[in-house]
Amino acid sequence: MIVVMRTDSTPEEVDAVSQRIVERGFRPELSSGEQRTVIGVLGSPFPELRNELSTLPGVSEVVPISKPYKLTSREFKPENSTVAVGDVVVGGEDLVVMAGPCSVEDEEQMVSTARAVKAAGASILRGGAFKPRTSPYSFRGMGVDGLRLLAMAGREAGLPVITEVMSPEDVETVAEYADVLQIGARNMQNYNLLDRVGETRKPVMLKRGLSATYEEWLLAAEYVLSGGNSQVILCERGVRTFEPSTRFTLDVTAIPSIRRLSHLPIVADPSHSSGKWYLVSPLALGAVAAGAHGLMIEVHPNPDLAKCDGPESLTFENFDKLMGQVKDVARAVGKVPAGAYS
Amino acid sequence: MIVVMRTDSTPEEVDAVSQRIVERGFRPELSSGEQRTVIGVLGSPFPELRNELSTLPGVSEVVPISKPYKLTSREFKPENSTVAVGDVVVGGEDLVVMAGPCSVEDEEQMVSTARAVKAAGASILRGGAFKPRTSPYSFRGMGVDGLRLLAMAGREAGLPVITEVMSPEDVETVAEYADVLQIGARNMQNYNLLDRVGETRKPVMLKRGLSATYEEWLLAAEYVLSGGNSQVILCERGVRTFEPSTRFTLDVTAIPSIRRLSHLPIVADPSHSSGKWYLVSPLALGAVAAGAHGLMIEVHPNPDLAKCDGPESLTFENFDKLMGQVKDVARAVGKVPAGAYS
Amino acid sequence: MIVVMRTDSTPEEVDAVSQRIVERGFRPELSSGEQRTVIGVLGSPFPELRNELSTLPGVSEVVPISKPYKLTSREFKPENSTVAVGDVVVGGEDLVVMAGPCSVEDEEQMVSTARAVKAAGASILRGGAFKPRTSPYSFRGMGVDGLRLLAMAGREAGLPVITEVMSPEDVETVAEYADVLQIGARNMQNYNLLDRVGETRKPVMLKRGLSATYEEWLLAAEYVLSGGNSQVILCERGVRTFEPSTRFTLDVTAIPSIRRLSHLPIVADPSHSSGKWYLVSPLALGAVAAGAHGLMIEVHPNPDLAKCDGPESLTFENFDKLMGQVKDVARAVGKVPAGAYS
Amino acid sequence: MIVVMRTDSTPEEVDAVSQRIVERGFRPELSSGEQRTVIGVLGSPFPELRNELSTLPGVSEVVPISKPYKLTSREFKPENSTVAVGDVVVGGEDLVVMAGPCSVEDEEQMVSTARAVKAAGASILRGGAFKPRTSPYSFRGMGVDGLRLLAMAGREAGLPVITEVMSPEDVETVAEYADVLQIGARNMQNYNLLDRVGETRKPVMLKRGLSATYEEWLLAAEYVLSGGNSQVILCERGVRTFEPSTRFTLDVTAIPSIRRLSHLPIVADPSHSSGKWYLVSPLALGAVAAGAHGLMIEVHPNPDLAKCDGPESLTFENFDKLMGQVKDVARAVGKVPAGAYS
Repeated sequence: MIVVMRTDSTPEEVDAVSQRIVERGFRPELSSGEQRTVIGVLGSPFPELRNELSTLPGVSEVVPISKPYKLTSREFKPENSTVAVGDVVVGGEDLVVMAGPCSVEDEEQMVSTARAVKAAGASILRGGAFKPRTSPYSFRGMGVDGLRLLAMAGREAGLPVITEVMSPEDVETVAEYADVLQIGARNMQNYNLLDRVGETRKPVMLKRGLSATYEEWLLAAEYVLSGGNSQVILCERGVRTFEPSTRFTLDVTAIPSIRRLSHLPIVADPSHSSGKWYLVSPLALGAVAAGAHGLMIEVHPNPDLAKCDGPESLTFENFDKLMGQVKDVARAVGKVPAGAYS
Repeated sequence: MIVVMRTDSTPEEVDAVSQRIVERGFRPELSSGEQRTVIGVLGSPFPELRNELSTLPGVSEVVPISKPYKLTSREFKPENSTVAVGDVVVGGEDLVVMAGPCSVEDEEQMVSTARAVKAAGASILRGGAFKPRTSPYSFRGMGVDGLRLLAMAGREAGLPVITEVMSPEDVETVAEYADVLQIGARNMQNYNLLDRVGETRKPVMLKRGLSATYEEWLLAAEYVLSGGNSQVILCERGVRTFEPSTRFTLDVTAIPSIRRLSHLPIVADPSHSSGKWYLVSPLALGAVAAGAHGLMIEVHPNPDLAKCDGPESLTFENFDKLMGQVKDVARAVGKVPAGAYS
Repeated sequence: MIVVMRTDSTPEEVDAVSQRIVERGFRPELSSGEQRTVIGVLGSPFPELRNELSTLPGVSEVVPISKPYKLTSREFKPENSTVAVGDVVVGGEDLVVMAGPCSVEDEEQMVSTARAVKAAGASILRGGAFKPRTSPYSFRGMGVDGLRLLAMAGREAGLPVITEVMSPEDVETVAEYADVLQIGARNMQNYNLLDRVGETRKPVMLKRGLSATYEEWLLAAEYVLSGGNSQVILCERGVRTFEPSTRFTLDVTAIPSIRRLSHLPIVADPSHSSGKWYLVSPLALGAVAAGAHGLMIEVHPNPDLAKCDGPESLTFENFDKLMGQVKDVARAVGKVPAGAYS
Repeated sequence: MIVVMRTDSTPEEVDAVSQRIVERGFRPELSSGEQRTVIGVLGSPFPELRNELSTLPGVSEVVPISKPYKLTSREFKPENSTVAVGDVVVGGEDLVVMAGPCSVEDEEQMVSTARAVKAAGASILRGGAFKPRTSPYSFRGMGVDGLRLLAMAGREAGLPVITEVMSPEDVETVAEYADVLQIGARNMQNYNLLDRVGETRKPVMLKRGLSATYEEWLLAAEYVLSGGNSQVILCERGVRTFEPSTRFTLDVTAIPSIRRLSHLPIVADPSHSSGKWYLVSPLALGAVAAGAHGLMIEVHPNPDLAKCDGPESLTFENFDKLMGQVKDVARAVGKVPAGAYS
């Protein structure tokens, strides 16, 4: 942290800032230039200190020079982390594809989907039992019955399963059925929920908030890691932009950027980000080419009858076609194509 | 809801859409023009139907023509709603000011602040006991001890109190101490939390999400109202924009817009939105002039020692000065100035 | 400018950076801490230097500590600047209201509007002759004939006039008829146009770009001032946000922020920002309460027949009503109400 | 266009709207439902009509149901358009790479870069002579001398050249030297400039505005096409988002979306969008995999000495490496890799 004093700051003000730094347990290091004085703060200042110092008289600005997140940073752990989900390893050479319906609706739907996505090369089955919905009048998921159907379909097809948990109270229950606990975009800063999943020893997939910065996203992951659970997978699912024709805009830049800032694996969700099935394939290929460790794709036996996100869901046929293209692009960038190891 | 068919849609496709509308329990109304066919959906279609119909062959777009929120809408209840907090009425002629520190720190701080803001004309005391923090390493509040101090300080000064609740599990406890349950911006779409406060009979202040639209905000309020609790106050606290010099950008337009769309009272928070104490006064006056029913202001005995949000907190002296200006502007727009009735 | 070296930077890298700084004509000032070395750049480094230094090996980041704009900054000129438009002074105690139709349509329209807004207290007449339109098929203005009608109507009512200039080639012609040259939001970064108006000695009103930061806006003004024309009025006209129900979102925070950063006068345009006539009044009052030096309001004899921006235009009656409220709020914040001096 | 009347609209209001539609030369088509009346507007209503009708009493909203752009739309021309630049065809099977420095600096720089990018497989040489700069104190390009150097270097290496034109006045001059006229992001809505390049018969590359929607972008292209010049290439160069660590965020979704909405070719610029050389390759590969017809890449012999955009420029070596990867991904998605035909 560097405190930049105003050009018209007085020696008294400089002393006061230095003294405050000492009071807080750090060491000030003065650099008096012709134009202005700059005070370095030696040690590992806590985030609050920035605000505190910036309110002192004579201070122009306080510039943080180290990242606020620690455990999630590449500096802390230079080598890539991998997260094991059953036999599936996320973050390694394999390109891991998670696929399934937006929401669990019934046994036939889940079993047929599980078989279809497995056959096409997917390695993890997705399905929502607790659904965050913008409107209280929308279908909000089957709850625990949905968890049971999801787990059953996964066992039947030999696929581990991922599903969303929305509330601290539900973590334990969801953890009984799921192999990966998904934190949705709207809950990225639901800190009590992050604390709770941090206490489990289950892999967690943390989706990026609707307009979260990389730093906010990694700080949310820091909640989980600092809680003792280092099995975190990040998921870029699109951010809000001014373009009205798509639900969100997939931030492909997040993939190489996050891989540089953090050691955690990152996957992309081209389904939720675009909201349109015909955009899913080009975005999926783009994400893989840009270095994503995996993909999360919505697949439904009958998209036009889906209880949610029908417009963005792929039919079994389209998903199978996509997986063929994904394999080609994955090979082109030196990855082991999805399902290639099975 | 209106279904606009493609210019090249076939009669069979039009029939299929009409049939689906009937299957879903509504009545289709065809209007075949030279260029294209438009199908009106009579009844009160649920949100999902839009997605469902838009996936059918031959459909160009589906246009919703009624608002997705009901109980919160001005159409549903033409006259303004008021929310009573003790003797204080929010949403009426009085301009209601809520003031206090970002977070509860100790007894002296709370008692002195409570007295000062009361003397200056504030009618509700604020103070955070459970703090949502971007970093897990930041001060996260005193918890239940903080609730006790807040309630005590309020009683002592004769002010009802408002504080944030972050998790469904804490609603009951917070409701024991608080007169108003505050839902923070990061929890605007924490649906389990909205459900839970909807089950209480306590006034709720719902802050707007960091990049939420008016519709998403009113739908979040709809969760509370549809839960049976109609005592909801909306709080505009700034949205994210591209301007880096302020934390957020207060959307003053939200005040007259929301008042037109909904019957619920709306207050403004110029402290969190700007993040800078010297911007609080001009924004507070702007919000009042634009029609806000009240203000939420951060006040601290020693801003530079505050455990959070020091840079945006007003000293007792500055708050008193602000209240003088607020009174003048409130009168200019025909409101009863804050504290004038006390 | 401060160069923050990486914790693992070598002495050779530090030397190389220092040497580059010297080569570019500045003086490096080292501050070697336990954790890392920080190098201050003494002198007035040009903007490019930041990029250049940040690409050198061992550099973590380069932090600019002085504003990139000079002539427009409050540091450069502590006292408020005023811009004289005929007898009207913008930036002083008077609240100056500019009013008129979006586009000049015919003599009757302009003369009747000029009289009406003058009678209600406006001091400058607005009207567009060259219209920037999103679609090439929209009405693009009357051009020079429009300029003539505008100037004539202004003379007739005794009001100076403001109108937009879109192209460097048109500056001379528009300057013949207009008292203030308006640069529209879409041209805020049309640098050749800024250069050209900088060469004139006419007052210039520079609208903020659709998603411009304060710094970008002030740098655009810097083009005009550095060209030798210091008569610049800034106009906040709303920025793009995610709210779809309004055209733009008026950034009221820009008013006190810009007044702190710069000595230039700033006015607000609640008409273009909202796009809805019923939002114009609350936003106008909010802007005045927040410290705007003036307002720009769209007024049309028959909004529903207007060739552009009808939905946001006020009728003569509504404008007169607004001016009454504006006077009350202006007085409440210590300003001389519009038209009060005439 | 569909006019949706309010539920409480009167028959008189419905008649008034229908009459206005007739007055404007179109045919109204009533559809009276239980809840409300909807009026279709038959014909090809001009954009203004939407605003005009929406201001009439009893109107709830006016919904446009056909795209405002015509000549640029896929509906107007179902097959892909190609733009020939010398022997190079943009929009066909070949993946076309444009490469070169941000700005032309001297002969040696241009000649060496031209040779290097040609050798690596680029087919068009880029270089800026007129530079739009946020600060008036930044290097603004060599002007006409720069155009000469660019053209010379292109001839010498056998590559057509592309360069930016910023002002209508310069179009003729730039067209003498350039094979493709580039319109920069800040000028996307500089309508006089668009008109002028529309009058030429030179290929035009239109960059997307910093926060433009697809519709606004295609309407800007419509200016050029409606001027008589159909040789337009669109360039996605990143939009503004809330992420501060990159200059802009490349909107990869724009590639498949624009290809669906329009017949025009679209290329991507991963250099300007990211602002960081180490992000250029992953983004370039992502764009190609998502279906881009080409790429624009910044290359400089000595990035750290570049007069602009050094941090995002690739060295000859890195560019050569990138082209190898590009070829692999291009093949994976069935494109003819850059330079493969030479």
